[in-house]
Amino acid sequence: MDDISSPVLVVDEDKCRRNIRHMAEKAAKTGVGFRPHFKTHQSQAIGRWFREAGVEKITVSSFSMAAYFAADGWKDIMVAFPVNIRETDRINQLAPTIRLGILLADEDALPALQQELKHPVDFYVKLDVGSHRTGYYFDETDRIAQLLSLAAQNPLLHFYGFVAHAGHAYHTQSLNEVHKIFRKGTEQLAQVTAQFKKQYPGIIASWGDTPTCSLESDFEGVDEIRPGNFVFYDLMQYHLASCDLEHIAMVVAAPVVARHKQRNEIVLYAGAVHLSKDSILLSDNEKVYGEVVRFTGKRWEPFSKPVYIDRLSQEHGIFFCPEEYWDQIMVGDLLGVIPVHSCLAADLLRRYYEINEGVFLP
Amino acid sequence: MDDISSPVLVVDEDKCRRNIRHMAEKAAKTGVGFRPHFKTHQSQAIGRWFREAGVEKITVSSFSMAAYFAADGWKDIMVAFPVNIRETDRINQLAPTIRLGILLADEDALPALQQELKHPVDFYVKLDVGSHRTGYYFDETDRIAQLLSLAAQNPLLHFYGFVAHAGHAYHTQSLNEVHKIFRKGTEQLAQVTAQFKKQYPGIIASWGDTPTCSLESDFEGVDEIRPGNFVFYDLMQYHLASCDLEHIAMVVAAPVVARHKQRNEIVLYAGAVHLSKDSILLSDNEKVYGEVVRFTGKRWEPFSKPVYIDRLSQEHGIFFCPEEYWDQIMVGDLLGVIPVHSCLAADLLRRYYEINEGVFLP
Repeated sequence: MDDISSPVLVVDEDKCRRNIRHMAEKAAKTGVGFRPHFKTHQSQAIGRWFREAGVEKITVSSFSMAAYFAADGWKDIMVAFPVNIRETDRINQLAPTIRLGILLADEDALPALQQELKHPVDFYVKLDVGSHRTGYYFDETDRIAQLLSLAAQNPLLHFYGFVAHAGHAYHTQSLNEVHKIFRKGTEQLAQVTAQFKKQYPGIIASWGDTPTCSLESDFEGVDEIRPGNFVFYDLMQYHLASCDLEHIAMVVAAPVVARHKQRNEIVLYAGAVHLSKDSILLSDNEKVYGEVVRFTGKRWEPFSKPVYIDRLSQEHGIFFCPEEYWDQIMVGDLLGVIPVHSCLAADLLRRYYEINEGVFLP
Repeated sequence: MDDISSPVLVVDEDKCRRNIRHMAEKAAKTGVGFRPHFKTHQSQAIGRWFREAGVEKITVSSFSMAAYFAADGWKDIMVAFPVNIRETDRINQLAPTIRLGILLADEDALPALQQELKHPVDFYVKLDVGSHRTGYYFDETDRIAQLLSLAAQNPLLHFYGFVAHAGHAYHTQSLNEVHKIFRKGTEQLAQVTAQFKKQYPGIIASWGDTPTCSLESDFEGVDEIRPGNFVFYDLMQYHLASCDLEHIAMVVAAPVVARHKQRNEIVLYAGAVHLSKDSILLSDNEKVYGEVVRFTGKRWEPFSKPVYIDRLSQEHGIFFCPEEYWDQIMVGDLLGVIPVHSCLAADLLRRYYEINEGVFLP
């Protein structure tokens, strides 16, 4: 790892492939489709690991991300973000080249879309199953029916199904709470889908989020799952109990740049522009920005007494170093940081070093 | 602004140039050097506005940023981050092409530097004047003296002076508190500089941070100031009273993608990957991620009843829309968001649209 001089994403291909295989097998076993979200890794190279596990359909969160993956041969891409009608040019560029799915979360987006769309696209209707981010409530069936009949006026718009994302599962305190969110959300999703299936046969119910897809094993009423974060997992998912520490497949490499014995603090070259400012509260209400790990050969391991990033500025990450590790960490060493939110760290850094082969991914 | 379809930095060149001129004039009037920090904008185009205001020396926070600005003709660049000895190759590449300054915050970095350095560099010693991020305490004069005599063994290392940054000025509640931090910090900086001047004549005292440089008008004991954020300012600086709202020179353009009347909430295409997760607490303890503004011709203006981003996910920003503005904001509209921390938003987006001329910066 001598080639690593500044912060970079260090990924363990074996762990990633295991996470992908595990989720793909779960989807197959439970009879649901698998359309993983690629916003987490945003890497064509890592995308190929999914392809080799049999994945053919993917989810992304922007049209530029869709174009990036389309360029690597992905042919069925859903953009899981309320369609932005200022980007109809991008839709018209992409739609002829792939099977493109867009998301409707508000009927007000329809007129511009109807007018400017030049090629067929699939569309999904976004349901709000409790996260209150965006979408229709499951009981707004009149509004949904109206949206669908308006959309039906344009033969280029093909209604594909309903989409839900349990964003509120990220703010839970117990497995029981995650399970309740899953049960209630999938019931609402299944109910709406069943109701509109009479008029629109063949529509599907698509369900997202890593916590519920990791923790649940029966996806009754769901036709497709779209988790993304699980490819890497992260500190937040570990603290939600979505994964074990050993499932976490990515850390941020961070050079040690200074040690301050006066307060037993160590300064890493890994700040807000590498890790993001996302934080979690530990059980003692301590706010942390990542967990520090050390590299040992072709792997990394946490310290037996966990060590967390306590403070973060634009380029600096600072942690309190327990006395017993003080003499083991030197200026110039390379440590790892398990990010709180791997999607944001990956979005910031974009560059991957694969630890088993010891190479940078293309 | 019809050309803006997805989140981009919208900058007001006139306001930026005014902020630059104002700070440059203050430095000139008070007889201190001006070495602005370019980590805020990270743009060669905006860097030229500084050059046209007479700026010749700059600060950056990484060697890659130094290389980027060196490529645009900047010849005197200080990297204000504890020197990372894993990057000595980069130092050796840059040092022959420009006057390069590096930062020493820990004597443990010296041996590797001594051994690998191939070209002359300036070095600064980092003082910790209370932010407890990194550097030497002002009363650790023995340690500093030892560092300097070790460094003196290598003729390629030229001691340039002391550097301090009042990072704790960003966490203050009153102007009085900022002023106290400034007084105490500059006194410590001046004292250490004076003490070592006997042995190292010609060394300077360099002082950073936007709050104190904006609010103070007498830089006694300081030879050079290095503020960065002031070129744009942001919501955090406004709430610290470092600037007025009209000095804020950059907002993030954010398309409206959905409106949810059930809870008077509007969803913007502007999330954590555009604004960063940095937040501030308003006086009523409400945590916000930015202030929403509207574009009116070649400017933007806040709503008379301030509107804030309440929630943020990877790509979504959500705000509560007061009833009186509900019918004025439509799906497909473009709003602006004053970011909490302009440096992080700029680092994320990198692409600038200049609002007066209506063009994207190269």
